[in-house]
This record gives sequence, C-alpha cells and structure tokens, in this order.
Amino acid sequence: MRTYNVAILGHGFMGRAHSNAWLQANRFFDLPARPALKVACGRDEVTTKDFADRWGWEETAENWRTVIDREDIDIIDIALPQHLHKEAAVLAAKAGKHIFCEKPLCLTTQEAEQMIEEAELSDVVHYLNHNYRRVPAVQLARQLIEEGAIGTIYHWRSAYQQSWLTNPEFPLNWKLKKETAFAGPHIDLNSHSVDLALYLVGDISTVSCLTSNFIRERPLAEDPNRKGEVTVEDTSLMMVEFESGAVGSFESTRFATGRRNHHTFEIYGSEGSLCFNLEDMNRLQFYSHADPEHTRGFHNILATERVHPYCSNWWPPGHIIGYEHTFVHAAADFLTAVDSRGTISPNFHDGFKNVQVLEAGLRSASSGRQERVGNS
Amino acid sequence: MRTYNVAILGHGFMGRAHSNAWLQANRFFDLPARPALKVACGRDEVTTKDFADRWGWEETAENWRTVIDREDIDIIDIALPQHLHKEAAVLAAKAGKHIFCEKPLCLTTQEAEQMIEEAELSDVVHYLNHNYRRVPAVQLARQLIEEGAIGTIYHWRSAYQQSWLTNPEFPLNWKLKKETAFAGPHIDLNSHSVDLALYLVGDISTVSCLTSNFIRERPLAEDPNRKGEVTVEDTSLMMVEFESGAVGSFESTRFATGRRNHHTFEIYGSEGSLCFNLEDMNRLQFYSHADPEHTRGFHNILATERVHPYCSNWWPPGHIIGYEHTFVHAAADFLTAVDSRGTISPNFHDGFKNVQVLEAGLRSASSGRQERVGNS
Amino acid sequence: MRTYNVAILGHGFMGRAHSNAWLQANRFFDLPARPALKVACGRDEVTTKDFADRWGWEETAENWRTVIDREDIDIIDIALPQHLHKEAAVLAAKAGKHIFCEKPLCLTTQEAEQMIEEAELSDVVHYLNHNYRRVPAVQLARQLIEEGAIGTIYHWRSAYQQSWLTNPEFPLNWKLKKETAFAGPHIDLNSHSVDLALYLVGDISTVSCLTSNFIRERPLAEDPNRKGEVTVEDTSLMMVEFESGAVGSFESTRFATGRRNHHTFEIYGSEGSLCFNLEDMNRLQFYSHADPEHTRGFHNILATERVHPYCSNWWPPGHIIGYEHTFVHAAADFLTAVDSRGTISPNFHDGFKNVQVLEAGLRSASSGRQERVGNS
Amino acid sequence: MRTYNVAILGHGFMGRAHSNAWLQANRFFDLPARPALKVACGRDEVTTKDFADRWGWEETAENWRTVIDREDIDIIDIALPQHLHKEAAVLAAKAGKHIFCEKPLCLTTQEAEQMIEEAELSDVVHYLNHNYRRVPAVQLARQLIEEGAIGTIYHWRSAYQQSWLTNPEFPLNWKLKKETAFAGPHIDLNSHSVDLALYLVGDISTVSCLTSNFIRERPLAEDPNRKGEVTVEDTSLMMVEFESGAVGSFESTRFATGRRNHHTFEIYGSEGSLCFNLEDMNRLQFYSHADPEHTRGFHNILATERVHPYCSNWWPPGHIIGYEHTFVHAAADFLTAVDSRGTISPNFHDGFKNVQVLEAGLRSASSGRQERVGNS
Repeated sequence: MRTYNVAILGHGFMGRAHSNAWLQANRFFDLPARPALKVACGRDEVTTKDFADRWGWEETAENWRTVIDREDIDIIDIALPQHLHKEAAVLAAKAGKHIFCEKPLCLTTQEAEQMIEEAELSDVVHYLNHNYRRVPAVQLARQLIEEGAIGTIYHWRSAYQQSWLTNPEFPLNWKLKKETAFAGPHIDLNSHSVDLALYLVGDISTVSCLTSNFIRERPLAEDPNRKGEVTVEDTSLMMVEFESGAVGSFESTRFATGRRNHHTFEIYGSEGSLCFNLEDMNRLQFYSHADPEHTRGFHNILATERVHPYCSNWWPPGHIIGYEHTFVHAAADFLTAVDSRGTISPNFHDGFKNVQVLEAGLRSASSGRQERVGNS
Repeated sequence: MRTYNVAILGHGFMGRAHSNAWLQANRFFDLPARPALKVACGRDEVTTKDFADRWGWEETAENWRTVIDREDIDIIDIALPQHLHKEAAVLAAKAGKHIFCEKPLCLTTQEAEQMIEEAELSDVVHYLNHNYRRVPAVQLARQLIEEGAIGTIYHWRSAYQQSWLTNPEFPLNWKLKKETAFAGPHIDLNSHSVDLALYLVGDISTVSCLTSNFIRERPLAEDPNRKGEVTVEDTSLMMVEFESGAVGSFESTRFATGRRNHHTFEIYGSEGSLCFNLEDMNRLQFYSHADPEHTRGFHNILATERVHPYCSNWWPPGHIIGYEHTFVHAAADFLTAVDSRGTISPNFHDGFKNVQVLEAGLRSASSGRQERVGNS
Repeated sequence: MRTYNVAILGHGFMGRAHSNAWLQANRFFDLPARPALKVACGRDEVTTKDFADRWGWEETAENWRTVIDREDIDIIDIALPQHLHKEAAVLAAKAGKHIFCEKPLCLTTQEAEQMIEEAELSDVVHYLNHNYRRVPAVQLARQLIEEGAIGTIYHWRSAYQQSWLTNPEFPLNWKLKKETAFAGPHIDLNSHSVDLALYLVGDISTVSCLTSNFIRERPLAEDPNRKGEVTVEDTSLMMVEFESGAVGSFESTRFATGRRNHHTFEIYGSEGSLCFNLEDMNRLQFYSHADPEHTRGFHNILATERVHPYCSNWWPPGHIIGYEHTFVHAAADFLTAVDSRGTISPNFHDGFKNVQVLEAGLRSASSGRQERVGNS
Repeated sequence: MRTYNVAILGHGFMGRAHSNAWLQANRFFDLPARPALKVACGRDEVTTKDFADRWGWEETAENWRTVIDREDIDIIDIALPQHLHKEAAVLAAKAGKHIFCEKPLCLTTQEAEQMIEEAELSDVVHYLNHNYRRVPAVQLARQLIEEGAIGTIYHWRSAYQQSWLTNPEFPLNWKLKKETAFAGPHIDLNSHSVDLALYLVGDISTVSCLTSNFIRERPLAEDPNRKGEVTVEDTSLMMVEFESGAVGSFESTRFATGRRNHHTFEIYGSEGSLCFNLEDMNRLQFYSHADPEHTRGFHNILATERVHPYCSNWWPPGHIIGYEHTFVHAAADFLTAVDSRGTISPNFHDGFKNVQVLEAGLRSASSGRQERVGNS
C-alpha cells in the first residue's frame, strides 16, 4: 500500500476536522493508499506544536510557502482562511502537489480561473471540500435523482441558518470585515448550499439577491470599549433560475435564533420530492408518485443501511454517524483518486461555478436587478 | 328521506359532541336519513334548557326513563355516566329504540351480556361509540392490514396518556371514586386502546396488569379543606397475548406531564408497520418491506386525500379535520345502519369483548398473575 | 339576542365553508347576535337549491345584484370569484350592508381603494377573510410577538406549497387564465402568506419577485383533445424588505409534489423564534432566549389549552381542531363586530396593503428589478 | 502523562468500537493519561492480525487467559461474548488489572457477585460499558432530574426495538441459542434500557415479564437445508415498580419492522417530562411546568451546545455526533478514573442490579407472576 505524505496549512477548526479525517480514513475504509501526517503549518509555534502533538503530525513549520516546495510532500491540505486559498493552491499546483482545499474555493472567479489553470497544467488531483456532498443522505438524494425517482425538477428551496450574531456584544472578528472575509454568510454558508444545488439540480443561469445588516456596529475584538463597523452582510437571500428551467431560493443568515447549523433543502420534481436537514443528517425525506395513492407520504429514510452510500463502512443499521464523518469520506475518496490519478468532485471546476453564482449574487445585491451568472 | 327522532340522555362534554354530530352529519354526508333533535334529558332544568337552546333540541325532560318510552322517539343517544349505561340501554332496547351508546359500554361483563341480550331480542341497531375507530388514519390502518400490507402482526404497543391529575390540589371528583367510576384510566382510557387493538389486531387471550396510585388523597370537591381517598387507580399498565400469537402492551395514565390527549399505537408486522398519534390524528406512519431497500422509511401519510376514508366528504387534500369529526362519521354511519336495519361496529358485542379484557386486567392487578380473558 | 340576516353570494368550496361557519358560530361561542341564513345566490338554479337545502338557507336567488338591495338583508357574504369582489362589495356598501368578503380582496389597488371608500362612506363593518389569522397557534404567535417574547424581528420565511398542477393532463381551468384569475399562486396562495407577514411582522417596503411556468400548455377543459396556453404563473418567489428593517421571503407554488396545503412560516427575532405549518395547524414552535441555556430548544406547543386563543370554546386540551374552525372563529368575531358596529381585522385596509405588495411583486417579476411597494 | 497498556479480548463489532474509542479519546479530550494499544486477542490468527493492523494494536495473541497475566498490561478490555465475561473479569481482577467490560455484565447474579468480589479485593477500577449513559442528551436528562426539573418521577416507559429477525431465513446463530446467549433481547437489549432506568429513575423492586417467540425454527447457519429450534425469546415485555413508587414498562424485540436501533424512553414527573430516541440521539425532549402556561410544550433540545455534557470537546453547536462517540466518552472517563484510582459508573455494582432485574424478569416470564427483584 502506497503512503502519501501530507502537509496541512492551518490548525483551527478545519485543521482538527481534516486531521481526524486523515487518521480515520483507513480504519473504516479499505483504501489503496494511506496518508502520512508529515507537517503541520501554523504561525504560532506553541499552538502549532500542541496541535501536531495531539493529532500526530510529525513536524511543524511556521512558513507554509516553503513547506509546499518540500520534495517529500505529496499532498497539500489547505485549511487556511479563504483569502489565502488561491495563493496556496497555485503554489501547490506549481510544485506538483495534490490539493485538498477547504471551502470556499476562493474569493473571485479570476482567482478560481488561475487555480484551475495551474492545477490542470500540473495535472494534480484537486479537491474542494464541500463536505456535505458526502453525507450519506445527500448521496442518496443524488442517486434517487439519477434514477429518475423524482422526475423533472421544478423547485430548489434551501436555507443555511445560524444564530451566533444575535448577541450585539459579539465582537467584530475577521469574519465580519470585508477585507478579510470578502463577504458574510453569502459566501460562508451559501457556498455550501450552492454546491449542493449545482450537484443535485444543475447549473444556475440567473440570480436575484438581497443582502441586509441588522447590527451595523460591534465592539472591537481588541478593545471592547470601542466599536467598529460590520462591513459584510448579516444575511443574504437569493432567487435563481437554473439552466434546466427549475427555480430556486437560498437563504443564509447568522441571525436565525434557535438555529445552530441548520442547513436544509427541499427539491420538488414532477414525480417526487426530497428534503434534508443537516441537523438531522442521517435522514432523508423522500416522496414518490410511484407509491400507491393511499400510502403516499414522505418516507422518513434513516440512511444508515448497508445499501446506503458509505454506510457499510461504519456501524450496523440505525447506529448514526455525525458531522466529522463527512470529512472521513472525503479523505477516503481523495486518497483513492490520488492513488489512481483520477478525478474527484467537487473540485476547482465546481468551485469556479460556485463563485460565479455568488459573484452574480453580489452584483444583484448591489444593482437591485436580476443578474446573469457569468456576465461579470 | 326518512327522519328519525333522537332523544339524548345527558348534556355534558359528550352531549355537546353528540349534538354536533347529529347536526353536521347530513351537511357533509349524503345519507338516506336524517335525525330530528327531539328531546334533551338532564336533571337540572336550567342547564338542560340552555343546552337544548344552543344545540336545537326541541324539548327538554328531567326523567330520561320516561322519555325512552315515548312513541315518537326512534333513537336513544346515551351520553350518561357509565354506571347508568346498562339500565338505559336495556330500557331502550325493550322499548324497541335504536341505541347510540357512548363508551365505555358498561362496568361488567354481566351488564354487557344483559345489554346484548335485550338488544338482540328487540332487533334494534346498537352502536358503541369508540369514536377513534372512525379517524380516517385509523380506518386507513385497518385497510392496510386487510390488504396484507404489514403481513402477520407481531406487536401492538399503545399508550393513552393524559396529565390532569399531576396537580395534587385537583379535587376528588366522581371520576376518582370507585362507586361512581368503577375504575380510573384502566377503563376510561384503556377501553379506547383496547377497542383499537381488538379492531386492528384481533382477540386477546391473556392479560397481565399493574395498577398504581401516586396521590392517594385529594381535597374534597365539596369542601377543599378536607381530604378524601382516591379509590380508583392513577395508572394502569397491561401486557397481553392475542389469540393470533401477537403480543401487546397498553399504558394508560392521568399523570403523564405534557401529554394532554396523547393516544398512540404502534403495530409491527412481518411486512410492515403502522404508527398513530391522536394528537396528530390526520397522519398515519406506514413502513413497508414492499419499498425498494434504499427508500424504506416510515411514510408520513397525511390522511386527507379523496382516496382516504371519509375524506372526500370534508375539504380538499391537506385541509385537516379535528376531534369532533369522528363523531360526525359515527352519526353518519349509524343513521345509515338504522335506515337499512343493518349492523354497525363497534357495537355491544365489541363492547363485551372490551369489558372482558378490562375485567381480566383488574383481576390480574389484584392477583399479581397473568389472567385469561373470559375466565372470570 | 339580535339576529342578522345573511345573504351569501356563491356556493362553491367557500360557500360550504362559510355556511358551516354561520351555523356553528353560536353553538361554540357565546355571542351577542346570531345570523339567519336567508338567501343563497347562484347562477344555476338546481345546484343552488341543493346547496341551500343542505345548509339551511331559506331562499335562493339567481341574481345576487338584486339580493344585495333587499331591505331584509343585513350582511353580504361574498364567496364569488375574485374578479367580482369589487363590484359586489361596492354595491353592498352602497346598500349599507355589512360585508364578509372572501380573500383575496380584489385584483388591483384601484379596486381596493374604491372598496374602502364606499365601505367607509357607508360606515359598514367590513371583513376580509384571511382565515389563517384565526388559527389559535397563529393568534398565539401574534400574542408572543406583542409580549416581546421574540424581540426584534429579523427574518420572515414562508412558503405556500401545493401540488395539484404536476399532472400535465390537469385541464386549463379558470384559475390558469389571466382574464379570470389575474394571476396564479402569486395571488391565490401568496395573499395568505402576505396577510400573515403584515399581521405578524409589519408593513413591507420593497419586493423582488421571480415567477415561472413549468407546463405552458394544457388540455382545454371543454375539449381535452385541444390545448390552450396557461397565462398565469405556476410559481412565484419573492424577497422583501419590511419597514422595520426585517427581511423576508415568500414562495408559492402549485408544483410542490407531496405538499397539499403546506403553508409554513418561520420568524426569527433577537430573543426568540416562531415556526408554523398549516398542515399541522394545532401546533406552534417557539424558541426563547429566556430559557436556561441548557434547556433551549423549540417548544412544541400544542395550542389547544384553555389559555390559548379560541380554544376554551372547543374541546378539552389535546383534542385538536381542523381547517373549518378558522371560519367559525371569523364568523363569531364578525358577528360581534357587527353587533357593536366595531371594526374587525383583517379588513379592506389590510387587503389594500396586501394587494399593494402583490402588485409590486408583479411589477418586479416583469421588470427584473426590486420594486417599492406603493410606487405603481 | 502516564501511559496505560491495554489488551483487548475480542475483535468483533465491539472490538472495533472499543479500539476507535482508545484512539480518539486523547484527541478530543484533555486527559491525564493515555492508552497504549498493546495486545489484541482472538482465536483466529489471520483475522486478529488484520484487526490489529487496522487499529494499531502492537501485538496479537490467541490465548487471552495468558495475556491477562502479562505484567506489562494495565487494562483488560473485555469485548468477548457475554458467557465469558465472568471468567475474564475474575482473572483480570486477580491479576490486578483495571477492567473495561462490555455489556451485559454477565449471565447471572452469582456471576456478578463473584466479579464484584474479586474486583473489590484487588481494588481495581471496573467499568461496565452501558455506553448510552454517555450520550450527551442522556447525561443532560440526568442533570435535569438532579436539578429537580421534572420533580417526582411517576412513569418510565421504554422500548428497544430492532428488526433483524423478521426474515424467517435468517439463520440460527449463537444469539438465538440459550447455551451461548442465555436469553434474547431480554438481555441483549433490555439490559441497556434497564441500565438507563436504574440511572435515571432508581432501583426496581418488582417485575412482571412476558416473553414470546414468533418464529420457532430457523435454518442452521452451518446447513441452511436443515432447521433448528430458536431457544431464546424473540421479544420480552416487562412492567416494573420502582422503589420510589414510580412504575415502568420495557419492551425489547427483534421483530419491530422498520426499527433498526430504536431505543426510546419517556419519563414523566410531577413537574416535567423527558423523552429520548437513540436513532435521534443528539436531541432530548423536555417539558416543564416552569414554563408559562401558554408556551408549554416539549423543548426540542439539540444537545450539542458547549453547556451540554461532553459537547465542548467536539464540534461547534449544531454539528452532531454519532454512535461511536459514546465509546470515546467512556474511554476518556475510564482513563481518568484509572489514573486517579477513582470509581466510574456504571460498574460491576450497577451490572449486578441490572442482572437482578433481568433475572426477576425471567422468573416472572416463567411463573406468570409478578416477582420481587432479588428474591431468587
């Protein structure tokens, strides 16, 4: 079995989730290859060392740019803030490294194009970690759509709702400033929903978007007695048309009191429907016209059966899995793709389309008009 | 269209529900006959008069025994306390009146036998109002069982949970004294669950029962400064064997905080399953092995479609009905049965079986042993 | 007790629901007045006669315009198709009759203004039957908002989803033609959602709207071998800004497979949240920051308690009510308002605001721009 | 940080779950000690080797009895079939090893007494892995009970329902024979429910039990053309009295079509109630009389907040965990207890009480009488 040496850039929330995935992949999946956790990169030496100790990274480094160039590294795992994704990915591709990149892909379509260009030139495997595609229930949704079980799709309706900004004393951190985050939930949360919409329904042609701010000033993180301006939106709403003729809506917000990581979608087709809620991620709701008329109703599917995607690798039916398992699925599929020099999705191409949609959304929020995707 | 003159005995909670049913039946159902609301009987002249005015009963009377004998009355609607059911039904049968009798049928199997004997002798139509049989979702459950959709039944699991006795200051009313109520939730609530079990699963052969009291003394209704003993049980649990080989459990209580009229059942069979909750009575949950393996899950059926029992008489699909509609269904079916001199179920025979099961339960609660139904 | 004579215009689905409401109001509510069901109007003599017989209307008439002028009539109940609402209401007001008008109010703001003008001039009681305001759970939502239980509102998110057009063989009836229906679900369904949004959140200032058609041709009702064009939208999506600074979204569709009368809303505020689903209309979901942190979660309130609006008039707690009960509440409140010459809401003023929002939506759907409400 | 050497006996389903727990504990929890995965024991050399390779056990051994005596081993992890638990635990205690024992504790109270005696004599830390105690929502239930949030408990109602025996072709494996399994779901599943009841409600004084078989003969695993008798029950139902005066019911079955690992409990107290479902294990339903009357309803608590037990060690709020996380919690707590020579629960004492209840149940199933716990 081949071993691939991994260097991870970043050691925050995503650093933990990625590390866990690299460690768990081979324990639950029979893979052709295994990762070696080689280098963990971080600016602060002490916290990086702690992180490496806890997760078993062999070495630490402060400068990720030099690590990318190391000959012994095969895979660059980008878990940096999003404004650094482009630079890291381009350097990694130039160095011939396979890339496991956390979402969102990057900030603009220009950045995305550059990332694709370099990755294609170097012929490396590139993966964009919209991990929710790899929830078994979501994979099952895709499978049912491909089987024709819901027929022609008419409607997509999704929301990604969190609530961590309802407290006005929550400080003005980097996620609330345009210079570091570029946008708010429109990118942070919407990019997940848009990824699933592209995956399950198809390409989007037009976008109308409305953004808003509810609390415009917050205490500075560095000095709570002073206040600064929130320069990204607090919420973003979108209405879209798909190329197929379906219509869709998206909502993303950090002000939905009572919702913590509430990511839901509904898909209505001519023959059936599908509903999903990330906070209840082991279930898929499926309605089918193929059922006899008197027994029609949403099937409350507990997607933990051996016939469900990924599930035979975990526990017996009815024993649910959690959030981090989606990262393990991603690591397993990525290692397989790397070992066969295959492709995996979502990848930079999917990320490009995603950014295109979000960009059209920002243009629409500013113009007050419906905007065409790609017409920048 | 023939008209049948009705006399109602009693004007409490059930008097209202029955009156409403007589008034609504012909508005929503195309029936061969209609009721005339002739006489309302009650001990207190003023409240009976108010009741009659409100619901359109033509006359009032204080003595129901003489009303039963009136020649112009065709139907006796028994909405009296349960310890009077036997006497009223026997008199009505002897007078050749059709009988619409509120549940529970009566107190003992001896009483039940007498009621059956007189009703059969007089050849009157007799109906026992276990109204929950006529919830569309319950009828659908029965239909699915008859279709074989759940195969051989293994398990019945039910509970009827209320909470109106958790307050220790709730006074010692007639429902809490053995002399007036005979028993507590074992009869009041259990009789509903047992009726559904007999209807949906079949006859019961053995019963083990456990009863208990949580608050043994309560303020007297007539003098809150004094206390009296609660002489019926606060809760009753039963485990049963059905003739078919299935097993079942029943719980009934007035101490389930948060449950108001929470009557649930689960039925598990070799090919599928059914679940129901009276507080969500427009829905039936149905699981089927006939579904493809990857889409199995309980169908959440909103039983309001035109193909569902009774539903085409009400509103369009998705427009739900409520509690009192079950009484309207009963009145409609009863009028049809009366007009054709047919039978309707549940009737006194079903009530007899029901009382047999409850009696076995009381014997078991006392003996601490499993008891055979009918072996009194 | 005063009696008010009612004439009803129309005898379809709404004719049934209104008739039932007039009959039931005084049975369940203690009111200062009662209605007399005087005249039922309809173009077809036979079906109108059947309708009147079934519901107890004393007389029938073919020409509703002359009935409006009858001296013995006090209340005009408008259950006509929406394009006739304005004419009927104006005539009724001129004749000094109180008006119980089915939704939607009318087709345009010009019509709405005329209706208001005449009603105000004549000083009659006018009511617009957005009946869902009178669901107990919805009234409870309003009460909680007024108590400050959810604080400042940030988000409204609603959908009204039906599915009766997914079958391409469904014929081209009057609801699918612009000349008779003016618009599709944008008016038919959205007007209900907009009414609740205005009631619960407040006035709306801007609207962005997207409409679409999925099946553009259908068999003619009069000749299924020929096809005709659907000239109203199949779905309408809206994003709005409220005057208060809240944002909202609305979806309405007749193509949501599996949804029958699925009207849902979510309201997120600074201190709590509320969720409602019409197919489960006895329940309200309520989240509160006032709960201790470790027990926070949506309260699943079964709004059937005596402390809940209207509920003490029906059955004991836990005994649910259904769709038509909302009409009974409306009739009860309307009779009370008529008897005291008071006001009741929603009324023509609320209808005017509603039409304003829907008009802005149609302008936006056509212009592809965000439109201001009232800027016609 | 101290390291403790672990030897695991067994490498089946529980072997995997335990191995994962040892590996994950220190990654998510800050512990005073860490485990070293030293020896994996199994009868078959090849499969044991595969298992050890996958999970990182340093060595393998065929004879667990000799491994127990190895001086370098500190902890014996018993993941053997239940009829071997007693022998392994007694040997381990005699050898002075700390014991992490999979449930059920053992087969009889005599065995349990012997296990306790030896463990106490040797003063080793002993743990019995009823892992569901360590679901955050279950811990929260315990915490709320201790806070008095539900007052005096009246009712326990639980079910543990699976469905893997509904297929009559399922072979006669060791779990279906009395000589190897001792009993069926009465022990396998009930022991989990009984553990939670003892933990959350308290000691049990009497038991009435009903067991039954639905399919009495099955194909032999070794020769599907021949059939053999199922000698353990297919289902077990129990009604119990607690020392406190509460009553309870338990159901366990392998014939509940549609239920896969459906372990539910309801607890009703004088001031509130709690409901839990293992298939939705991140949630706890909590009803409280402390809520204002008009907002009472079960709180649907998503127990993933930092204030919820164990949750701050995993992911942000709303990011759910799964089945195996309960084992990680157990490993973390066990390592802490071992390092401080403290105690942990459940342990052999809890297991003893559990076996006592189950034994009383078997006596009752046989006698048809209510039996006292402990009166063997």
